[in-house]
Amino acid sequence: MIYFDNAATSFPKPSVVYDSMMEGMKEFGANPGRSGHRSAIEAGKKIFETREAIAGLFNIADPMNLVFTFNCTESLNIGIKGILSEGDHVITTSMEHNSVLRPIMVLENLGVEATIIDGDAMGRIDPAHIKNSIRKNTKLIVTTHISNLTGTILPIEDIGDIAREKGIYYLVDGAQSAGVYDIDIGKLNIDMLAFPGHKGLLGPQGTGGLYIAEDLDLKEMMHGGTGSTSHLLEQPDIRPDRYESGTLNGPGIIGLGAGVRYILDEGMENIRKHEEELTEHFIEGITGLDKVSAYGPLDTRYQAAVVSINIGDLDSSELSYILDQKYGIEVRSGLHCAPLAHKTIGTFERGTVRFSFGPFNTHEEIESAIKAIGEISKEV
Amino acid sequence: MIYFDNAATSFPKPSVVYDSMMEGMKEFGANPGRSGHRSAIEAGKKIFETREAIAGLFNIADPMNLVFTFNCTESLNIGIKGILSEGDHVITTSMEHNSVLRPIMVLENLGVEATIIDGDAMGRIDPAHIKNSIRKNTKLIVTTHISNLTGTILPIEDIGDIAREKGIYYLVDGAQSAGVYDIDIGKLNIDMLAFPGHKGLLGPQGTGGLYIAEDLDLKEMMHGGTGSTSHLLEQPDIRPDRYESGTLNGPGIIGLGAGVRYILDEGMENIRKHEEELTEHFIEGITGLDKVSAYGPLDTRYQAAVVSINIGDLDSSELSYILDQKYGIEVRSGLHCAPLAHKTIGTFERGTVRFSFGPFNTHEEIESAIKAIGEISKEV
Repeated sequence: MIYFDNAATSFPKPSVVYDSMMEGMKEFGANPGRSGHRSAIEAGKKIFETREAIAGLFNIADPMNLVFTFNCTESLNIGIKGILSEGDHVITTSMEHNSVLRPIMVLENLGVEATIIDGDAMGRIDPAHIKNSIRKNTKLIVTTHISNLTGTILPIEDIGDIAREKGIYYLVDGAQSAGVYDIDIGKLNIDMLAFPGHKGLLGPQGTGGLYIAEDLDLKEMMHGGTGSTSHLLEQPDIRPDRYESGTLNGPGIIGLGAGVRYILDEGMENIRKHEEELTEHFIEGITGLDKVSAYGPLDTRYQAAVVSINIGDLDSSELSYILDQKYGIEVRSGLHCAPLAHKTIGTFERGTVRFSFGPFNTHEEIESAIKAIGEISKEV
Repeated sequence: MIYFDNAATSFPKPSVVYDSMMEGMKEFGANPGRSGHRSAIEAGKKIFETREAIAGLFNIADPMNLVFTFNCTESLNIGIKGILSEGDHVITTSMEHNSVLRPIMVLENLGVEATIIDGDAMGRIDPAHIKNSIRKNTKLIVTTHISNLTGTILPIEDIGDIAREKGIYYLVDGAQSAGVYDIDIGKLNIDMLAFPGHKGLLGPQGTGGLYIAEDLDLKEMMHGGTGSTSHLLEQPDIRPDRYESGTLNGPGIIGLGAGVRYILDEGMENIRKHEEELTEHFIEGITGLDKVSAYGPLDTRYQAAVVSINIGDLDSSELSYILDQKYGIEVRSGLHCAPLAHKTIGTFERGTVRFSFGPFNTHEEIESAIKAIGEISKEV
């Protein structure tokens, strides 16, 4: 089996991730931050270590400004809904995932105005279009860092500069970039960074996070027990507690910490270089093939390890089925929860088949995929 | 080490829970419900098996009316905020956890009216008080099934009858009961049941769920990718997708399924009987001790395996510290995220030390705890 669906969830995880989760569950499986006994304290310490490791990765000065969530979708919901009110204007792009678009659509019904900047046929966003769309009431810009459909890398530094210049908050969706591409909160003008734990950061599912700038009074979405200020009926306003109601995913966060430490040990730029080489190999191999359409910039300076393709008139789900059943290659077909991105690149009707590579993929696997695509393209 | 903090999170888990999580992560660690390849389908199938197992446990006819959440707090937030609007009235009790009280406090600021029914000194709630508090605009009754402070079992059947008679929705917080006490959705008039995965159901942290009655048009709290109707910018209204945005905690839910199957194999009433016997043993052992105050009904017909105590004037955190350091007994001290419950039983100033027992505790451990409490009580 060849797994090329890392943009949905990375697989496999480094073995330290499995091992540390099990150790966490078996050795100190208590509720972190709730009780004062040794197991609970040890669990709480491990969770803080993950918080620190991720803060280090993103150059976040105070780990307490990093809150753990269930997944990147929750992070985006908090980030978008926590800041926008009736009368505010938000700017986003057509390359976004439904986890950005759907919350914004809901807010539109509540009197928030939204502008969606269209990408070009390669999924690229021109920052000037964003700048020109700014209104007096623009409060937030939300963009993905990397498109989950085309792998297109968005110019987040330029967009951040615009946001800073105009005094507008900037929320970056790091779903496809966190753990692989540099995101330096200190250098970039990012007020909020949403990320999943189970993709590039190599942690388990059920983990995610949101960085929230120190001075940003973001509304929380959930209310409940935080293990702190238990005598009060009001949600505490200290961080991270304000945004972390109820029991955290202890073993998941411990596993996530192991994933992040694995990345730091291996060197993020080495992992990225490997993924870039795989992507170049793949693009090179399929570009000459008859009837194969590939989307995005097709250049790893502008595209991450995510390549969407189609073959002839073959339905995308049929193509992925053949790849799975005949060749043992696992990819994702369909619309990838990004309908406007498909409209942008002209694949809304049929979808695409998405290949997404991870640190454990090999060039032999890429070769097999190229061969399979070549064979299928001759048969259609 | 003796672990008596099962009301915070159950520990240890049955070994099948650890094993199935690892199998899930290593063998088919794909993103369930997102892609069509074999690993994703296998992961999706396993998640459905957990949904079916839990539906079976609660006698929920259609498993699709059971949605997975991050934790019980999220379930309660969805249940409470999804149904109440300005002008509505909600009835709850003083025995609730902050995960019920804090969302209601937030809604009060938005024009929702709330009545909090006081428990008696043993934490008992008189259904007649609930009945007498019903107004024309009462839309929801929310009560816990079992107090996390005193273990007091609330009369949910009687309260459900009142709700049914008056046409009011009833949301039950099963945080301390799910997996141990019978909750039959078919028999009881429960419109929503919130529960954690990591307590009585013996699953891992990062899991929880909410049963939502078929005909209840509950607002969702999060919006995003659901892997379904990806072409639409609106949240799908099919279940469970409407309430499950973003990637689920795949390995966590697989582990939860193993926990539930373990309970079904062992027999939930056998587990409950064991916990009742441990609780009786503990209550019997400490009742005669000088300077020891124990709270709640102190009778397992009316109290679950949760017993709060104090010794003399000893601060609760000091007592738990001594138990941990000197005797290796892990318990929770403080307010347990239930401030009004402490006011109800008169322990708001000092908190309590809570002993909570689980299926893997033994009578030898209970004996050790009784001995330790006896020794400490002689020294204070």
